[in-house]
Amino acid sequence: MITGKNYIGNQLSAKGTKTYKTFNPQLNLENNPIYTEATKEEIDEAVTLASKAFKSFRQTSGKRKAEFLNTIADEILALDSELIETYCSETGLPEGRAMGERGRTVGQLRTFAELLQEGSWVEAAIDTPQPDRQPMPKSDIRKMLVPLGPVVVFGASNFPLAYSTAGGDTAAALAAGCPVIVKSHPMHAGTGELVASAIIKAAEKTGMPNGVFSNLNSSGIEVGTQLVSHPGVKAVGFTGSIRGGRTLYDLAAKREEPIPVFAEMGSINPVVILPNALKNRGEALAKTYAGSITLGTGQFCTNPGLLLGIKGEELSNFIKKLSNEIVKIEPSSMLHPNIIGAYENNKQKALSQPELTVVADFNSDVKPNYARQTVTTVEGATFIKNTTLHQEVFGPYSMVVQCENAEQLEQIISKLEGQLTGTLIADNDEASQYSQVIDALQNRVGRIIFNGVPTGVEVCPSMVHGGPYPASTDSRFTAVGIHSIKRWVRPFSYQDWPNNLLPDALKNENPLKISRLVNNKQTTDTI
Amino acid sequence: MITGKNYIGNQLSAKGTKTYKTFNPQLNLENNPIYTEATKEEIDEAVTLASKAFKSFRQTSGKRKAEFLNTIADEILALDSELIETYCSETGLPEGRAMGERGRTVGQLRTFAELLQEGSWVEAAIDTPQPDRQPMPKSDIRKMLVPLGPVVVFGASNFPLAYSTAGGDTAAALAAGCPVIVKSHPMHAGTGELVASAIIKAAEKTGMPNGVFSNLNSSGIEVGTQLVSHPGVKAVGFTGSIRGGRTLYDLAAKREEPIPVFAEMGSINPVVILPNALKNRGEALAKTYAGSITLGTGQFCTNPGLLLGIKGEELSNFIKKLSNEIVKIEPSSMLHPNIIGAYENNKQKALSQPELTVVADFNSDVKPNYARQTVTTVEGATFIKNTTLHQEVFGPYSMVVQCENAEQLEQIISKLEGQLTGTLIADNDEASQYSQVIDALQNRVGRIIFNGVPTGVEVCPSMVHGGPYPASTDSRFTAVGIHSIKRWVRPFSYQDWPNNLLPDALKNENPLKISRLVNNKQTTDTI
Repeated sequence: MITGKNYIGNQLSAKGTKTYKTFNPQLNLENNPIYTEATKEEIDEAVTLASKAFKSFRQTSGKRKAEFLNTIADEILALDSELIETYCSETGLPEGRAMGERGRTVGQLRTFAELLQEGSWVEAAIDTPQPDRQPMPKSDIRKMLVPLGPVVVFGASNFPLAYSTAGGDTAAALAAGCPVIVKSHPMHAGTGELVASAIIKAAEKTGMPNGVFSNLNSSGIEVGTQLVSHPGVKAVGFTGSIRGGRTLYDLAAKREEPIPVFAEMGSINPVVILPNALKNRGEALAKTYAGSITLGTGQFCTNPGLLLGIKGEELSNFIKKLSNEIVKIEPSSMLHPNIIGAYENNKQKALSQPELTVVADFNSDVKPNYARQTVTTVEGATFIKNTTLHQEVFGPYSMVVQCENAEQLEQIISKLEGQLTGTLIADNDEASQYSQVIDALQNRVGRIIFNGVPTGVEVCPSMVHGGPYPASTDSRFTAVGIHSIKRWVRPFSYQDWPNNLLPDALKNENPLKISRLVNNKQTTDTI
Repeated sequence: MITGKNYIGNQLSAKGTKTYKTFNPQLNLENNPIYTEATKEEIDEAVTLASKAFKSFRQTSGKRKAEFLNTIADEILALDSELIETYCSETGLPEGRAMGERGRTVGQLRTFAELLQEGSWVEAAIDTPQPDRQPMPKSDIRKMLVPLGPVVVFGASNFPLAYSTAGGDTAAALAAGCPVIVKSHPMHAGTGELVASAIIKAAEKTGMPNGVFSNLNSSGIEVGTQLVSHPGVKAVGFTGSIRGGRTLYDLAAKREEPIPVFAEMGSINPVVILPNALKNRGEALAKTYAGSITLGTGQFCTNPGLLLGIKGEELSNFIKKLSNEIVKIEPSSMLHPNIIGAYENNKQKALSQPELTVVADFNSDVKPNYARQTVTTVEGATFIKNTTLHQEVFGPYSMVVQCENAEQLEQIISKLEGQLTGTLIADNDEASQYSQVIDALQNRVGRIIFNGVPTGVEVCPSMVHGGPYPASTDSRFTAVGIHSIKRWVRPFSYQDWPNNLLPDALKNENPLKISRLVNNKQTTDTI
């Protein structure tokens, strides 16, 4: 049952006076529950509890943390229809999407549990001593990854489950051994509270310390600002807009002790369509991309907002086909009136730029909060000189840039800001002729796709979700997949430490039977 | 031969008018060569060349990069006595130290060459496709580490070879595939130029692109500031003071595109001496620590500046013994008049704090630029309330804090800023009785040492040189050892990419025979 309160550790709390409601964009009505924003006192309390919990949580075994994560997954599933209904009422997204996202969230938690059970993720490395070495004896040195401390996670508007309360950031941080304080996203506060209740139940069932998780309601920027500035907080995970992510990054960088902020932000996900592919499969591509641009009402961070081709009849035909296809698609609702408002504003800003042509615009009446899909086109030279056209229009919008030639195509790509993804659409032997274009694209993105669509982020060890700024604030990490745990850990060395006092991962007898780098050789052997 | 010019790629250049000389602290005289500071134009040129060089260097095979690094090592050795003499004349350090540091520098380069030859460091991960998976087919996804782009390295005053021009930061960045621009340290500009000439020769001999390395002279903050602000620069490595490192960090964080700065900064390296150890080996410990505090005139970043014990007769005796031992040691010269000046100022600032007692102070006359070693002591309560006492005094200075009990010891440790190292001196069964003290210490440091001294940083895979802020700006990385390469790389994913266009590390046939994570299993198998 939704209470509208914060979870300060395992206690429900609502000391504040500032309240808000969520909104059902399908019904164009506010939802009933009233949420109370966390006060400064409650924030302090959550951070203090998290710091205390860290003392024991960071030494909790992988097995026990795995139980915790698996129990969170079980408890989320146990929320059953209440969770799905709340999700739908707060997002306007269909039930199928809610269930798919729940499956992904549960899958992420279980994947991290497996990682912990196996145990080698701590990257244990051991260099045994050489007491007789000349001119100096060599010490025994052993290294492993250890957690940073309390992590603040900002839920994403567009993924209320998979990138929010118990989403990838939280799962990775808990797996690392970091307590988590979630700044709940105001648009889906109910979904957030339900998932938080599942985490708290799981923490209690598996004997985790109070404070290992808190969930703070917030409707504005104050709660987030206070959290990121709090000396007890040691790292931040964020998924959202460039403006929001950069604000948090700046705040964290200005602290007396700066802390890492991993913000996954905006992206227009350029798609390069080479001439032969256009010629041979233009119609199929137009259908595929009409679908990708409008998928989830264009509310994916990997939405293809920029299509790049070389000017000519083939490209003109493709633009026509894409326009015909995209207007056939029934508009759908966006997440919130604020989101549709931003979509309309950003789209109008783009459309008002000189030398831009609208080629497809869904013109019929739509229900409130429903987004009209739009496709525009510009010349390469126009795009280069007007960086307003490089900005993301979050929603079912895409722009086709008609380049003069391969050189201009390469030039445009190299001038783009950092992106989550880049896609190359090419026929069999065509790609090898465009190696400079591909090189330029690789240098601007975190993931490059061949003959596919950027929407859809597989959760697997080889996935990179992140990229050069502003796709993310630190391209050295991914937000998706098991390696996202590396955002929340640091290496730590023991020198000549007694075997009985070492953590299990580094003991001579290798009780966890994990793979370790021993004298620069990977092995599961004992010492 | 030293020219006093900058290396802008492989060209010597001296377009500027601002010049400076280095200083011989032993002779208390300026050295002869005149160095010309790099101009804004030269800085731009170096960055432009580096950006161009990056296009091919980032695709250069591990084998060829290894040849490059090994040839740098050969060319450094070929500089022979000219390098050693220049080093000594610019630092006042003895020849033995110069040769030891050269050995370490050459060793680091060769270690990275081995890493490249083996090849598995790119952390290749492959998830093979599942076209029949329901409800959605799974793509082929492959990931590996790729270089960030041009890296700026700031040489350290206290390690003119191992942490400077061709030191750990440069070796790691070149190994990663990043061109390097060194901001030469003004105190050892000659050593820097000689080593730069070795790198340039090696680059030419092994066919590396022009711009893969540049060396810029600078006497003030302008060259460094311009480099860190330059849009073409993608990461920064720094070893030096907290003030210097933080300035660069702030500058990088304020850029339109923020870039990572790995700054290894100050540390007072707390040493906890437990009562039984004091009782049983106080005299030996006093001798050992008198040596560690004065090693290299106290100019190591791991110098033990803070000794923590529990008040009592044993600790009083230890303080006396330490005082007796340390004044027996002949003073030695510091690196530069500025360094000795800062030492004297910082020491005076510490000594002027209330309730601090000087227990050892070398009082005889010393030659110019020679540092007088000093030991002080304070009560635990005094230390807690006066954070001025927590600040590093770079040089042969240490303070013994006399704690009331184990609780106060733990409290003091948990109030310390982040540190490179922490040391525990304990008798056999003593450590297990102080688990909370040890926990607190672990949480504040990057490396913890048992019954040893913090000075001496072994170069091996298990080493962590770094730690919570301000030991470094990002505790998630080490500055020493092969894993320091991770500072300069990012993960990159290929989705459904044709096998023939993939880099060798990710090809089905595994031509490099490296270890890869294939469908979540580590293997050298082909696909």
